[in-house]
Amino acid sequence: MRLQPSQTLQQIAGMIDAAFAGNPDFAVTGINEIHKVEPGDLTFVDHPKYYDKALKSNATTIIINKEVDCPPGKALIFSDDPFRDYVYLTKHFRPFEPSQSMISSTAIIGEGTVLQPNVFVGNHVIIGKNCIIHPNVSIYDHSVIGDNVIIHSGTVIGADAFYFKRRPEYWDKMESCGRVIIEDHVEIGASCTIDKGVSGDTVVGQGTKLDNLIQIGHDSVIGKNCLFASQVGVAGCVTVEDDVILWGQVGVQKDLTIGKGAVVLGQSGIAKSIDGGKTYFGSPVQEAREKMKELALVKKLPEILGKL
Amino acid sequence: MRLQPSQTLQQIAGMIDAAFAGNPDFAVTGINEIHKVEPGDLTFVDHPKYYDKALKSNATTIIINKEVDCPPGKALIFSDDPFRDYVYLTKHFRPFEPSQSMISSTAIIGEGTVLQPNVFVGNHVIIGKNCIIHPNVSIYDHSVIGDNVIIHSGTVIGADAFYFKRRPEYWDKMESCGRVIIEDHVEIGASCTIDKGVSGDTVVGQGTKLDNLIQIGHDSVIGKNCLFASQVGVAGCVTVEDDVILWGQVGVQKDLTIGKGAVVLGQSGIAKSIDGGKTYFGSPVQEAREKMKELALVKKLPEILGKL
Amino acid sequence: MRLQPSQTLQQIAGMIDAAFAGNPDFAVTGINEIHKVEPGDLTFVDHPKYYDKALKSNATTIIINKEVDCPPGKALIFSDDPFRDYVYLTKHFRPFEPSQSMISSTAIIGEGTVLQPNVFVGNHVIIGKNCIIHPNVSIYDHSVIGDNVIIHSGTVIGADAFYFKRRPEYWDKMESCGRVIIEDHVEIGASCTIDKGVSGDTVVGQGTKLDNLIQIGHDSVIGKNCLFASQVGVAGCVTVEDDVILWGQVGVQKDLTIGKGAVVLGQSGIAKSIDGGKTYFGSPVQEAREKMKELALVKKLPEILGKL
Repeated sequence: MRLQPSQTLQQIAGMIDAAFAGNPDFAVTGINEIHKVEPGDLTFVDHPKYYDKALKSNATTIIINKEVDCPPGKALIFSDDPFRDYVYLTKHFRPFEPSQSMISSTAIIGEGTVLQPNVFVGNHVIIGKNCIIHPNVSIYDHSVIGDNVIIHSGTVIGADAFYFKRRPEYWDKMESCGRVIIEDHVEIGASCTIDKGVSGDTVVGQGTKLDNLIQIGHDSVIGKNCLFASQVGVAGCVTVEDDVILWGQVGVQKDLTIGKGAVVLGQSGIAKSIDGGKTYFGSPVQEAREKMKELALVKKLPEILGKL
Repeated sequence: MRLQPSQTLQQIAGMIDAAFAGNPDFAVTGINEIHKVEPGDLTFVDHPKYYDKALKSNATTIIINKEVDCPPGKALIFSDDPFRDYVYLTKHFRPFEPSQSMISSTAIIGEGTVLQPNVFVGNHVIIGKNCIIHPNVSIYDHSVIGDNVIIHSGTVIGADAFYFKRRPEYWDKMESCGRVIIEDHVEIGASCTIDKGVSGDTVVGQGTKLDNLIQIGHDSVIGKNCLFASQVGVAGCVTVEDDVILWGQVGVQKDLTIGKGAVVLGQSGIAKSIDGGKTYFGSPVQEAREKMKELALVKKLPEILGKL
Repeated sequence: MRLQPSQTLQQIAGMIDAAFAGNPDFAVTGINEIHKVEPGDLTFVDHPKYYDKALKSNATTIIINKEVDCPPGKALIFSDDPFRDYVYLTKHFRPFEPSQSMISSTAIIGEGTVLQPNVFVGNHVIIGKNCIIHPNVSIYDHSVIGDNVIIHSGTVIGADAFYFKRRPEYWDKMESCGRVIIEDHVEIGASCTIDKGVSGDTVVGQGTKLDNLIQIGHDSVIGKNCLFASQVGVAGCVTVEDDVILWGQVGVQKDLTIGKGAVVLGQSGIAKSIDGGKTYFGSPVQEAREKMKELALVKKLPEILGKL
């Protein structure tokens, strides 16, 4: 998330009543989770295992729970609970704004776009030209929809990321301030759910077609001209390259990449990154040919073992 | 379901035009399906296999299709079709009430709770304080929602139990008169479905977080601080103890228990009760370590068999 | 789809500016995709592999991308892109009609039917008697719902078929002009999606009961008195005969048949037609007994191989 206008280190630290290291006028121009940071961004780190990664990342302001030396050209904010303070700042700069009507007056809707009855369009949403949005679709605040997009009934664009930090007594919610971006010529079936990014964007690439009841998790980036059949589930922070086909009920775990042009057969489960240009099957997936041989061998086991 | 005011045996028997055994003034204070009965309850039994269970249960009034002796301190109602008569009584005491508006005038909604546009809140619903209910959520009659609950768009709370009796020519519907109870600090993702209990309560325990497109069946009781990833399906009458994690697309069959702190990996299928504190994988599930060994062995089979 | 009034060959060819072979007054009485054609129908073929099938089908007018001889009693329309022209004609005769209100004035709704608040009923929809349609259901144009049908919240009836033709640079959409037909006494759970036929009908047969979050693809025909548990996914062009039971999360691939009375256990994947009257399990499915033996054998492999 970009901060407009940008803030100073001193202003940010003041909001959470924290000590800091660095020039008080140091500019903070965005707030982002560690996977999405750019220069100017504020991020947080609260586990020694990740201190180094955070300090060496593109982020230039880091909320941290240890008094380490400030790297050159950066700033630090010291906190006993960086997660709490990061969430506080997120909510401060991207507060939940209740909607007064089904179509927010701050939404921008392109020429030729048809909103069927009872579509919810949240605050600051942008919808392009010549789209059809069918009844009972919900589009949360800050979502961006391209031109010539079709979204079928019941689909939910931009619900909160499913991201919680384990506390001893409860799950603590990471407030998400990211967006969903649906590019041109995408079609999304009925009752799909595409969550917003934690701080960056969840993207469905140009020309991709999604069937019904599909889940796309936060910060996942789906390439161009992909085809996902019904009930596919993609977790958070997944990269799906262009021209990928996922057949029905395929499940994809978080933080991995599916290579360009991969085809994954129905009900497969993807737990690690897979190369493009091949066909896969199984849970966990293998190359389909290999998996089929394995299945055939298991079927023949009684006979084979009998002979032995 | 409690009956308020309570009824007499004679009144109840009269409604279904049935003979009875017992004191005509015997009190019937509730109607419950056999798994949920308490003293004062009316229940039914129509299969010899279950006569004994029903007669010895906590229920004190039993609709039965055989002229057996009335157990002491109880009452019997004789019917050629106990299911039909039980369903008739359920519908009589808990009739479907069409709604006149999106938010029923009989609903109670707590302070600080935000209902986004186009939320349906049925009759006699109770929603606590400081909740956010996103657009296009449907909350059926008699549901109870705690404080600080977040429910995302498209989710349906309290649809009818999926419970049908096989008749020679058709499926006969059990009318459900139970409720859904969502405890404090629960978050429910987009397009989830949580069915009401047949006569008791379906419960999602305090602090539990559900991702999108999740199914929770009738009368299931989910513990506190559980985490269910997207597209998990839990059938009816399941007990999930506290701190259980179910990853994406896990399926749970009916009438079983998942022990405290169990972790079940994605796409697993749970057909029997499993102990807490362990990690599971597979369909049907095994302990994950064991399953992984099995998968590795199957991959090596060609080599192993070749050597033999 | 029937054409009312019917058209002449010359009229149709004129709309797409194409040459034709046959009597200019030859009647075109319907438009149908090759799997659904009847005499009088226009269809298309664009691949040499299917020329013969199309020319010998029941269709009497064929848009084709080769100048072949016209079969007796038929007509041909010559096009360099039959798919494009077929889609053009479909959109011409079944244009998308934006809705002006939640319940179209062209819808017919039977006596005793309750539409709960915020149900969308599209143009030319027919709903029978004594139905209950729960809040936030979306029923697209031309759907037909029988008597005594219950549809739970969030369900979407009649969204577009998921059918795209691969072009070198993009997926080209087949416009669907078919319908969904829900027969009498069907109950459909919450957040299900039942797509319309490409040119024919998607059917859910009398007395069938669907749980929540179920997908039924275009042109699939579900028999009478079937029972599908939650999160079942059925692809397009599937035939499910009467009395079939599919347990939770079962996936069914396209273009196959499930025989009468088959029972398929949870999470199974059906990739080929299966006979009726048997119980199945696995992905891909086998008879359940056989699959269970296989699973038991795999578990014993370490022991068996150790002995060898």
